[in-house]
Amino acid sequence: MRQALVLAKQGEGKVSPNPMVGCVVVKNGIVIAEGYHERYGGFHAERNALQNCKEDTEGAELYVTLEPCCHYGKMPPCTEIIIEKKIKTVYVGCLDSNPKVAGKGVQILREHGILVETGILEQECRTLNEVFFHYMETNMPFLTMKYAMTLDGKIACETGDSKWVTGEESRNYVQFLRNRCRGIMAGIGTVLTDDPMLNCRMEGGRNPVRIICDSRLRIPLDSQIVKTASEIETIVVWNPAKAIAWRAQGEGLEEKKQELESHGLFLLEVPTGADGELELSYLLGQLAKRGIDSILLEGGGTLNASVLRANLVQRVYAFIAPKLVAGADAKSPIEGSGISRMKDAVRLEDLEVIRFGEDVCMTGRLTGKSASYRSFGLQVSEKQNLCRREEKCLPES
Amino acid sequence: MRQALVLAKQGEGKVSPNPMVGCVVVKNGIVIAEGYHERYGGFHAERNALQNCKEDTEGAELYVTLEPCCHYGKMPPCTEIIIEKKIKTVYVGCLDSNPKVAGKGVQILREHGILVETGILEQECRTLNEVFFHYMETNMPFLTMKYAMTLDGKIACETGDSKWVTGEESRNYVQFLRNRCRGIMAGIGTVLTDDPMLNCRMEGGRNPVRIICDSRLRIPLDSQIVKTASEIETIVVWNPAKAIAWRAQGEGLEEKKQELESHGLFLLEVPTGADGELELSYLLGQLAKRGIDSILLEGGGTLNASVLRANLVQRVYAFIAPKLVAGADAKSPIEGSGISRMKDAVRLEDLEVIRFGEDVCMTGRLTGKSASYRSFGLQVSEKQNLCRREEKCLPES
Repeated sequence: MRQALVLAKQGEGKVSPNPMVGCVVVKNGIVIAEGYHERYGGFHAERNALQNCKEDTEGAELYVTLEPCCHYGKMPPCTEIIIEKKIKTVYVGCLDSNPKVAGKGVQILREHGILVETGILEQECRTLNEVFFHYMETNMPFLTMKYAMTLDGKIACETGDSKWVTGEESRNYVQFLRNRCRGIMAGIGTVLTDDPMLNCRMEGGRNPVRIICDSRLRIPLDSQIVKTASEIETIVVWNPAKAIAWRAQGEGLEEKKQELESHGLFLLEVPTGADGELELSYLLGQLAKRGIDSILLEGGGTLNASVLRANLVQRVYAFIAPKLVAGADAKSPIEGSGISRMKDAVRLEDLEVIRFGEDVCMTGRLTGKSASYRSFGLQVSEKQNLCRREEKCLPES
Repeated sequence: MRQALVLAKQGEGKVSPNPMVGCVVVKNGIVIAEGYHERYGGFHAERNALQNCKEDTEGAELYVTLEPCCHYGKMPPCTEIIIEKKIKTVYVGCLDSNPKVAGKGVQILREHGILVETGILEQECRTLNEVFFHYMETNMPFLTMKYAMTLDGKIACETGDSKWVTGEESRNYVQFLRNRCRGIMAGIGTVLTDDPMLNCRMEGGRNPVRIICDSRLRIPLDSQIVKTASEIETIVVWNPAKAIAWRAQGEGLEEKKQELESHGLFLLEVPTGADGELELSYLLGQLAKRGIDSILLEGGGTLNASVLRANLVQRVYAFIAPKLVAGADAKSPIEGSGISRMKDAVRLEDLEVIRFGEDVCMTGRLTGKSASYRSFGLQVSEKQNLCRREEKCLPES
């Protein structure tokens, strides 16, 4: 199964929104075939392994990281070829969350007399496709928050200068992360300060869809983002009320909208939440409907805080450079209004520590079970309770 | 030599202000003796190795991490016993910076016909005793800045709550660091906020001298520090002008001084520098004269920034907990006024990354050669240049 996991990873960045899957076929203790899902629309791992196998597969054991599919999609179901090739035993890493499969693949194999064992290295197999499982199970994109900071916790000097916090190896890895995600998100603050391209500069990589949170539609027409919008899909997230309020009687708004659209940008209207800010969970739901299963958030401190508060972050990549810049006014990676008690902090699980040149990258998953969300939540519900109490105090008419 | 380094480390925390030294004696390819400097005032490594050796040491090779001493201190010189025991070859890790030795040990051995090779694993041998070398070569304490922060760079929540940022394993290691240092330094802000003991709670550990930077002499008489000052040596660093200015006509200052002294605290007067703050380089010089060769700085953001700016930090230990608390107003580890350009950041060298339970600790040395100091320095000299220029513009009388 470990070998199947290694194979599966070779499909990274090429199979989304499909899951990465690896498959190894063993007979009499010898590996006679292996395969993985190589690209979106291509053969699945099981078929790649089995159809090229020159040995006789009768009575062999098949290891596959994900439950074999049993429905006709782009390809005929994998269960068919497993049955046809007379496999004796199938070891499955984890079940498929896709409602079209979800245990039915295993069931069909068993009905054909094949011995099936599930849950082999289940956690590793699920983590491999954490994006796929999250998207399937919640209908929301898997959001990865990425930031780079100094060892004293600053994302920029107090002057705003931030070129560069981390070294080349770290920055190259960010390109790899961009390649792996379907969407990349930033706030208008980042666009106005850094005028970034937010594209993928990895060789052979693909550009993620750019999503700019710009409630007042302030994005400059001469920004890199707008200038390249005809080549790279770009969504500008805005709110009409805020955009109008920011302008004298909404003056010039229609023209701005038309100009942006003529440059090829898609304008996505998003309502504001109870806090008067863009309702991010609505936004992410909309993006999921557009097939965006994964988002790399390269926001500033304010957007990062909003997304964390809304419980929409699944993973954090924090790149830490071994340098110090000091400064009480230097920006920190997550700002906004914070958690009140250290014991309620949002915790990262399954932490990995990776060295990139001089830098250290820490990454881990946010489970959503963390006390933190309760803590953020508490503040809101406490306020709501207070409001209700005040309402009750009003004399009934 | 690697074995000698491992032996040397066993003296950690017990030999200061002496260096840690390890020694291995080899004859015909077999280790026939080993020893290390075990405690301050005890035998040196070479003597520990040689005097207990039951084999004939004639013609043997001796590996020692530090140049053998050649002067009468608490012990007779190590060169004597090496000559007496008819050692043929001596391999030395690094030369001793102590002016009483500094190459003379090696010279004496050579004059007695012993073959001496120096600079074996020199960098490792110097790093082992970085505190000793720094103290010897600069007459200033080796200052280690230690802080604990969340993965989003906060040392406390925006409410000030900071219990606890890191887990038990990290906090235990801090006790080990305290045991290793002769002094521990904090600002009055930390005392007023956390009322800490700043003692060493490691089993068999020793308490460092507590040094509180409290220019206005605000330390409360009922603080843990004052209450335990009769048992643990404590220095309060203050400035008369600031202490008087803070009080209405300096009222109550004499009484406060007397009360603190009667509790056993030592009051150390320190002048203010050009920036109106305590002159920290003067302070460290005074502490060095009192035999304090090493200081663990457990300051808040302001004190940390002042010490960094004054170019007085030799090493940083940053403990990072895999948790997020957000908050634009949450405190960060190094505040004050910062460096303007990211490319001028203070860099850490020989970075080590250590896991303590869930936490990650990053530690590295500051070389003082970093551009950063020039950057901090530039700001000062630029001001000076401006002043000079203005002076020149004055009509000559």
